[in-house]
Formats: sequence, structure tokens, C-alpha cells
Amino acid sequence: MAFLNENYLKLKAGYLFPEIARRVKAFCDANPEGARRLIRCGIGDVTEGLPPSVVAALHKAVDEMASRETFRGYGPEQGYEFLRHAIAQNDFRDKGLDVADDEIFVSDGSKCDCGNILDILGHQNRIGITDPVYPVYVDTNVMAGHTGEADETGAYEGITYLPCTAENGFVAEVPKEKLDVVYLCFPNNPTGATATRAQLTEWVEYALANDTLILFDAAYEAYITDPEVPHSIYEIPGARECAIEFRSFSKNGGFTGLRCAFTVVPKSLKAKTSKGEKLPLHPLWNRRSSTKFNGVAYIVQRAAEALYSESGKAEVQALIRHYMGNAAILREAACKAGLPVYGGVNAPYIWVGTPNGISSWEMFDRMLNEANVVITPGSGFGSNGEGYFRISAFNSRENVEEVARRMTEIKW
Amino acid sequence: MAFLNENYLKLKAGYLFPEIARRVKAFCDANPEGARRLIRCGIGDVTEGLPPSVVAALHKAVDEMASRETFRGYGPEQGYEFLRHAIAQNDFRDKGLDVADDEIFVSDGSKCDCGNILDILGHQNRIGITDPVYPVYVDTNVMAGHTGEADETGAYEGITYLPCTAENGFVAEVPKEKLDVVYLCFPNNPTGATATRAQLTEWVEYALANDTLILFDAAYEAYITDPEVPHSIYEIPGARECAIEFRSFSKNGGFTGLRCAFTVVPKSLKAKTSKGEKLPLHPLWNRRSSTKFNGVAYIVQRAAEALYSESGKAEVQALIRHYMGNAAILREAACKAGLPVYGGVNAPYIWVGTPNGISSWEMFDRMLNEANVVITPGSGFGSNGEGYFRISAFNSRENVEEVARRMTEIKW
Repeated sequence: MAFLNENYLKLKAGYLFPEIARRVKAFCDANPEGARRLIRCGIGDVTEGLPPSVVAALHKAVDEMASRETFRGYGPEQGYEFLRHAIAQNDFRDKGLDVADDEIFVSDGSKCDCGNILDILGHQNRIGITDPVYPVYVDTNVMAGHTGEADETGAYEGITYLPCTAENGFVAEVPKEKLDVVYLCFPNNPTGATATRAQLTEWVEYALANDTLILFDAAYEAYITDPEVPHSIYEIPGARECAIEFRSFSKNGGFTGLRCAFTVVPKSLKAKTSKGEKLPLHPLWNRRSSTKFNGVAYIVQRAAEALYSESGKAEVQALIRHYMGNAAILREAACKAGLPVYGGVNAPYIWVGTPNGISSWEMFDRMLNEANVVITPGSGFGSNGEGYFRISAFNSRENVEEVARRMTEIKW
Repeated sequence: MAFLNENYLKLKAGYLFPEIARRVKAFCDANPEGARRLIRCGIGDVTEGLPPSVVAALHKAVDEMASRETFRGYGPEQGYEFLRHAIAQNDFRDKGLDVADDEIFVSDGSKCDCGNILDILGHQNRIGITDPVYPVYVDTNVMAGHTGEADETGAYEGITYLPCTAENGFVAEVPKEKLDVVYLCFPNNPTGATATRAQLTEWVEYALANDTLILFDAAYEAYITDPEVPHSIYEIPGARECAIEFRSFSKNGGFTGLRCAFTVVPKSLKAKTSKGEKLPLHPLWNRRSSTKFNGVAYIVQRAAEALYSESGKAEVQALIRHYMGNAAILREAACKAGLPVYGGVNAPYIWVGTPNGISSWEMFDRMLNEANVVITPGSGFGSNGEGYFRISAFNSRENVEEVARRMTEIKW
């Protein structure tokens, strides 16, 4: 009989969001009235329609696919040149950052990329992960066999956790020990924190001094409102020698249901063999893409390209303004409710302390039962998330105003 | 410095198709006249426009995505219920095969699935792979560290190769030794061979007797014309206890540029831990999908659903007739040219012996230079493919007739 990958058996019962879905379903089944009033501010999923430029590009590309003269079959696994160029030019070179077209790898999602990147890395790496954190970084390392078992707090043996707390502004400090791979995410999911240029510089200097690979998740960079906050790790000198950056169209263009993202792998970035030979990672990621992926749908790549048109850029800005307007309302409501509030200024997530020391899941249940609002319990993101919850600003204005009203009405 | 995955360094210079692309580009750069006459029968990529029902479904779904009332963000990672149901009902239950909706996992491609399935399997499995074979099965095992180095014929230490030759009709015989995982592909890419019910029964009986997991790639099942040839491994009693099946919309609906496929993981299928505990694989694949994937674009899933409508089914049949008409013309031309011809009856690939014992790559170069036709060298699929080449029937009728003319004109 075939052997299974036993590392999967180390994973705890449920990935966070399926567990939330389960509790919400149980609540709705038992409370038809509450179900009708339910507002979801849990999963960070956009709610507004696709931008008009994207819709037009999709219709046009669908028509191209309808006739043999303009039909496109298999595309380049790494993405069409038109999109790789638009990305590298607009997101990087126009901002003075040195990124070549062929350093852009177009994919069907940052979640996939963050997991798949482990394919090209060795199993002996010492992994550093912030706490709280987007669960995918942890779970994919567990699946890949990079950890031992989890302890009672949910922390896995073999991972170095880097605490993010109110004291350090939810920006992990550079560790004393030498780590081989560190995941950083700014603007942060779930805390909404951002790193200053000085803080990111410290991380890049640490990485260069310790030969650390930084996996930099910048999926929320479009939500940065403060002009001083870096949008890309490549704004920091030396980052091309130590960092891979993940970006997504999910949250800026509203592509969560359309699926398009990209990963930047600089050609100057190296990793080593067990014998110490230093080799570039770019050809490995390129090979992985060729062999285990078949590219993103042509019509979706045309849709992503449309985000870089003049009209597309304006429409993205309107979406961001909408969601950040929501964030401001939710921040204010949480403050009024007397709760400690973080994030929500350069990120679409508001990170809120629970009242009276109740646990994150207790707060989840109270919000569900008393306010009929779904939030995300902070402890689902790691043990340092205990005592917090995340509210997502991805919603209609009407829903957000109603959530704000309900939150301030409850006696916490 | 981070360690890289050294298994990638064992991979030979290029994945087959990039190497073909390189030679074709060099030829075209040097021969503008030949470049103009060039006809590609190399990569198995469809050429005709998307079926009208698919185009209509895409436009409709794009419009739904345009407004917040009908917008869809993140979908279920395993696929929308409407599509899982349409697949299980039409492709399996309507044909008397027992497959439940939630045993269907919708993905963005069979190539991805064939590689990713290794994530849930242990590293200690003894792997059996037919020769010649679709290179992805081999390369993904190399990347996962399941092999040693390749020898001078390109065969990797640690893989058991199952020869497919003219003598056995290109259907591998059941091996004497016990293997844990075996890849089978029928109708076969590259040889175009199919397995009879009796041959598949022998494989399922072998698997049940030896606790072997069969990874059954049925991406080309729509091209079967012989009513006696099985379309699914689940037509064989016992297969639900020993087989995973991969299917794709790439070749029936022409989705190579749209990206949609699915994998069937029966809930009755088990694998074991190193201690011998037998556990179902379904929850592992489900967990992998939740954690490392974010589902296929909603609009693409609606497009796939449209293939199961009455009009969609008729349009698929018209596409299949077109390509199989091409296959008949190419078969006849290769016969007329005096070459040994296989396949092309239940599959869109014609598998042809080279003339006068020349090598596969020599034949590739002659076809490129003398006929200005791109074919695929058989040796690219494994050492038993040496002395053969593959012609793809995916083309316009006009191109196929021209290829047939050129092939018969050359003095081989």
C-alpha cells in the first residue's frame, strides 16, 4: 500500500477559515432570524464588483478566444509578456526599482505561491515565522515536514516564532539567532501593521549578514496611505540579494474570484547546496513553473493588464478609497466601544483587543450571537493573537455602518 | 544562506517542450522563409475557438462579476458545487459509475494535479512509470527527491520503468515486483495507445493484490471512438479502492488557455503510515486544496459547466470529430510515407517510427528543416520512445492536409 505524507497528520483540526464557516453555519441553522441579520467581516474577501476596465478586458478577451484566428491555447507558464512587462514597469521600474520583466512570475494566487515556494528550498532550513501570522505559512511548512508536532498552544516544534505584540507595534524584531528563511508580511495580515523604512532596512541588513532568505508578502501594499511606508521590499538596498516578494491582484483589483497574482524572484538572489555551493533561485522557480504549472487563463491575464491602464488605475484607487473609508468607520466604532484598536490605517484590517480579557473565540461567539457579525478570532493566527480579533473592512458601506452601530450598542 | 532543493539539480537540461521551442526559434531566426511555412504539430495544444456555449457562459459570468449583487469572491477551494455535481453526474453516475460530488476536486490543470498529488504521499514509495511517458510524472518525482541521478539514457535511479513497446502494443505489462505507486495514462500521451478492459482489469487486480496506488491520467478519454475501450478506471471493479483519476477540460472543451481540470479521489481509497495504519487519502487532498490552493476562477467554472449542457455536449463532439478527422489524415499520410504508424484511432496523437533507424531528434530536425513541420521527438518521452516521433492532430484541417502532403513528398 502506498505510504501517505504523515506530516499532514500533525496539522491541527481545521484551517482557521473552515472552522469559522462551521461555527457560522451552526449558528445560522439554529437562528434563522440571526442568519438574516448576519454580516460577515471575517474572511478578507472583497465585496464590490470588478472594475469596469477589467470587465471590458474580459469580454474582449473572451471574444478573442471564440475564433481560431485569435484563440490562445497554452500560454507561457510564467505569464504572458504583456502582463509581466506591465507589472515590472508600473509596480517597480516606474517607482525607481530595478525589477526585470522576466523576474515576474504570474500565478493563480499568492496563497499558492507562498506554499509552492517551499518546493525549491531545502528541508534543512531553519524557518522563522511571525506570531500572529497568516496560517498558510505555518501549515505549508508542517505539510512539507519542516516541523515536529504542535504543543498545546498550537506552536510547532522546529519553527522559530517571532512575537508581534502591542509593545513592538506588531512588527517582529530581528532575532538574535541565525535563521535561513523568514516570512514577513506588510501591510500585515492580520494585524494591519506596517513596517517603517528603518525597520525593513534592519531586516534586510539582518538577512544579508546572516544569509537569510526573506519571503516578503506584500499582498496588501495598495492599501498603504502613509507616503513614508515602503510598498516593496525592493525599496530597501540589498533586498534583491535576499528577498522574494509576493503580490496579488486579489485585494487591489478585487480578483479573489478571478485568481491572479505574481511573485518576484530577482536573478541576483542565491541559495546554497548542502556542500555550500551558491546558486541562483530564479532558474529553480522557473523550472518549477514550467513543470508543475500551466499558466493563468489568458482572459484573466488580460483582465490583470487592464488594472494598469489609466482607467484601471483610477478604478483601483476608487475601490481602495471605498474599503479604507470602511476601515476608518470600523476603527472609530471599536474605539467608541472602548476597545484597544490597531491597524486599519495602511491596511484593510482592524486588529482589536478583546474586552475584559475574554478569549478570541469567546469574542467570536459573542460577536456572532449578540451582534450577528462574523469576525476572525486572533488566536486563529497564532498564540500571540490570543486576546485580539480581526475585523475586515471588505464590505459594503451600508454593512460597515450597521456593524459599527451594533458594536457600539453592545455593552462590552 | 537558505538551502535550496538540490533535487532540482538532478533534472536534465530542459523540460522537453522548452527545448523544442528553443530549436524552433533558432530555425525561424535563421530561416525567415521556413518560418513562414512552419506548421506546429508538436505540443498537444488545441487550435479551434472555444465552443459557443462556453463563450456565452463566460460573458454571462463576467457580467455577474461586474456588480456587487452578483459578484463572487473566494469560492470553495475544491470547486463550486454546481460544477462538482455536473461532473460527477455526467461523467460518472450517468454512466453507472459510483462517484460522489465531493470526490471531485476542480483544479486549474491536470499537469498541476499530477505534480501536486505527490504532496500527500510519503517519500518512501516505490514508483512505477511507463516508458515512454508524459515527462511531468518523472520530473515531479525527481523534484520531490524520490530518485537518484539520471543515467546516460536519462533514466533516474529509484524509478521502476515499465517499457511500452510495439511488441506489447504500448500497454505496459503488470510488473513482477511490488510497486507502491504506478502512473497509467490512457488514451496514452504520447503513443495514442489505449488499454482494453481486460488489460485495465489486470492492473486493478495487481493494485489490489499489492496495495498499489494507481494514478490514472484520463485527460484524453473524450477521444475514444471504440465503444469497448474504458473511459474511466472506475469502470473496473475495485478501482475505487486503488485509484485516483485525473481528468481535464483542456482537450475536450479546448480549455488549454482557460485552465480547468479535475481530480477524482474516492473516499474509499486508503494509504498507510510508516507504522502501517491505513487512512483515507480524501481528507489529505482536501486539506491540501484548502491550504495551498484558492480554487478556479468562478467564470471558468461556469464555462466548464456549460460543456455539460445539451449544446455544449454537441459542440464538444464536433471538436472531437474535427481533431479525429485530422488524426485519420495524418495516420494515412504516415502510412503512405512508408513509416510504421500507431495510435490516432482513440487518441489525438499519432506515434510514428522513424525511417532507416535515425534517432528521434534527427527526425525532429529533418521534419523541421525539410518539411517545416514541428513534431515531438519520441526520445523526449523516455528511452523507449527513441526511434519514434509524435504527431499531434490538434490543428486546422488546412494545416493537417498540408502536413500530410509534405510528409508524403519527402523521400524518407
